[in-house]
Amino acid sequence: MKIAYAAMAAAMLAVHPAQAQTAPTAAAQTAIVEDFKPSTLNQPGQQFPQVNSQGYVRFRVMAPDATAVKVSLGLGGRGGTTLAKAADGSWTGTTEGPLDEGFHYYHLTIDGGTFNDPGTRNFYGSTRWESGIEIPAHDADFYALKDVPHGRVEQILFPSPSTGTQRRAFVYTPPGYEKNASTRYPVLYLQHGWGEDETAWSNQGHANLILDNLLAAGKTRPFLIVMTYGMTNDVRPGQPGGLASFDIKPFQTVLLNELVPYVDAHYRTLADQKHRAMAGLSMGGFETKLIALKNLDRFAYIGLLSGGTISLEDVNATPGYRDKVKLTFVSFGSRELEGGRSGPPGGPKVDPRANAEAIKAAGIPSAFYVSPGTGHEFQTWRRSLHEMAPLLFRD
Amino acid sequence: MKIAYAAMAAAMLAVHPAQAQTAPTAAAQTAIVEDFKPSTLNQPGQQFPQVNSQGYVRFRVMAPDATAVKVSLGLGGRGGTTLAKAADGSWTGTTEGPLDEGFHYYHLTIDGGTFNDPGTRNFYGSTRWESGIEIPAHDADFYALKDVPHGRVEQILFPSPSTGTQRRAFVYTPPGYEKNASTRYPVLYLQHGWGEDETAWSNQGHANLILDNLLAAGKTRPFLIVMTYGMTNDVRPGQPGGLASFDIKPFQTVLLNELVPYVDAHYRTLADQKHRAMAGLSMGGFETKLIALKNLDRFAYIGLLSGGTISLEDVNATPGYRDKVKLTFVSFGSRELEGGRSGPPGGPKVDPRANAEAIKAAGIPSAFYVSPGTGHEFQTWRRSLHEMAPLLFRD
Repeated sequence: MKIAYAAMAAAMLAVHPAQAQTAPTAAAQTAIVEDFKPSTLNQPGQQFPQVNSQGYVRFRVMAPDATAVKVSLGLGGRGGTTLAKAADGSWTGTTEGPLDEGFHYYHLTIDGGTFNDPGTRNFYGSTRWESGIEIPAHDADFYALKDVPHGRVEQILFPSPSTGTQRRAFVYTPPGYEKNASTRYPVLYLQHGWGEDETAWSNQGHANLILDNLLAAGKTRPFLIVMTYGMTNDVRPGQPGGLASFDIKPFQTVLLNELVPYVDAHYRTLADQKHRAMAGLSMGGFETKLIALKNLDRFAYIGLLSGGTISLEDVNATPGYRDKVKLTFVSFGSRELEGGRSGPPGGPKVDPRANAEAIKAAGIPSAFYVSPGTGHEFQTWRRSLHEMAPLLFRD
Repeated sequence: MKIAYAAMAAAMLAVHPAQAQTAPTAAAQTAIVEDFKPSTLNQPGQQFPQVNSQGYVRFRVMAPDATAVKVSLGLGGRGGTTLAKAADGSWTGTTEGPLDEGFHYYHLTIDGGTFNDPGTRNFYGSTRWESGIEIPAHDADFYALKDVPHGRVEQILFPSPSTGTQRRAFVYTPPGYEKNASTRYPVLYLQHGWGEDETAWSNQGHANLILDNLLAAGKTRPFLIVMTYGMTNDVRPGQPGGLASFDIKPFQTVLLNELVPYVDAHYRTLADQKHRAMAGLSMGGFETKLIALKNLDRFAYIGLLSGGTISLEDVNATPGYRDKVKLTFVSFGSRELEGGRSGPPGGPKVDPRANAEAIKAAGIPSAFYVSPGTGHEFQTWRRSLHEMAPLLFRD
């Protein structure tokens, strides 16, 4: 368990909201194009923050009597962006360089206090509701809200005797689920990262739209996605504990003994091993590895999205891996693979590519995907889900 | 339509977040009891804001270099609460008196800018995501999350040719809906107020838990609740227009021509007039009156929750009212009926009680409910739904 902790700690550090990456060299060479438009995540009617066609972000916040306003989001995730005051009491600033495509968390520091940008919507990350901004991606079409049949995202509340609570999960049901009364469906259990919750894969990840669009194009088999809260190491109800004290057992009990049976009882699932997958991003990937590898009678498909790797040693040390696992999917953002950043801090560097090649060479059905130009952020995970979904439940 | 506009404008003014009421006399006489606890709406791990057993709220915000921090929520909804700075850089303040039971919107003013309290979750009201606080109510049990069978809150995305968008709605399905494959259900279309959206009835109103608990107690017939966005007078996509330009037609088209047929096609509904209800709070009540009274071939049950009244003149002016309407439900918070506040500003005072008595005396099946000690806020509407639900679909 100690190795898992170290690797998980690395993932935690990497999920910090200031992780947005830029290309400093390109930035220094390029003039800022003045075609800024309101971010698509802005609250209704709000004009700021804005994003330009290069991926620069311009912030504007009203705080007439403030003495200092900063934004946590900046060049290379370092330092943030300092806003300057204008005569009308507004504070404005533009990032020093373009941000990576996709979704970024951020917050404001106003006179030494941490607040959200009133211009944008909030998204749960870093164990708080944070501001969010979206840099339009060249491939945004695959998670766009389009005129295709849409599945549902259903909030369920399931009893959890082990925690003495009624717990929340969201269940994506594909278009037509309600009509095909005799059809049963495979299920993907899909976990968020550290500091996030069961809302992340829909709100930040657009998991439902990714599936809707894949299904409309005939590119994947329809299946259910179940998303629940994976940080069960609360110090007290509602207060997440630190990672040092993380123990997989409470979450495993909720997932395997409570949620899976509830879903199989209340949805038309194919309730066997070969029609059940588990995947997760960052900490959710580590949870997947810890739970699924010890429960291969339950899961046939395993996905680690910026959440560790499966080595040939893992395969050999896991009874039944070769027979039972139909797919091992591992992915990262390309920026995570720069400079050995996929290894735990101070620990040995891990090369996910080498592990992926080794298990492939050993005949393990597997896929390895690298999201170009993105880091430990949701654009990597949107793309990873988009790549992984068509590979699931093909038997 | 002009009368409807004036009444709607009154409702709009009344929905302002600073509407929380207190009892000034009692407040002046009572010492503050130091048993403050974190609000149940706080973000995970956050200790402030806190509420005491009397309903006072204590706020604490970190902003070491700020010069002024105020909270919009205060005594009688006037003036707000001014926070004072401590040596550690925190700002603390307590409301001058106890607030009414239930949910209140609020925000901070920090150095002249409007921000949310980082301690609490956000709720969509006043066309922005606002901070929320919950004063525990003596009757909170009816909307508590309990160990009873729970229905689902399902996000659907339905095509809307009239607006050229894919629109969102939430559908509450009662426990057992998925099992009773041959059972069909009545439907309540339930609208939010001005500046709110389709999330309000679940997030602020706990509509799903109210129904779960009523059903567990055998006190209501199971039915679906459909909640969608009723502010269709956007100036441009995502930017709500003012009320002066409000036109019911766009929303009526979405509701009657697009959403109702979608729900009837995708859920097992009883798709006839006598199994369809429409109700709404504040502006949603006005929308209900404008739409349902002109479409009595579609709706048999009508609910106005702090959203106008049905007079005998309305009944007599509406062809078919006596034959087709199975229930007219009207409710208010008791504080709304103090000082003629239910009338439009500058216009004639309306006495909802007199209207309710007049239609009852004329033999119109109707119910009139007043929520004790609450104003134009969600505690009134939670109670109103709890009162109304058992009266629906009894034929």
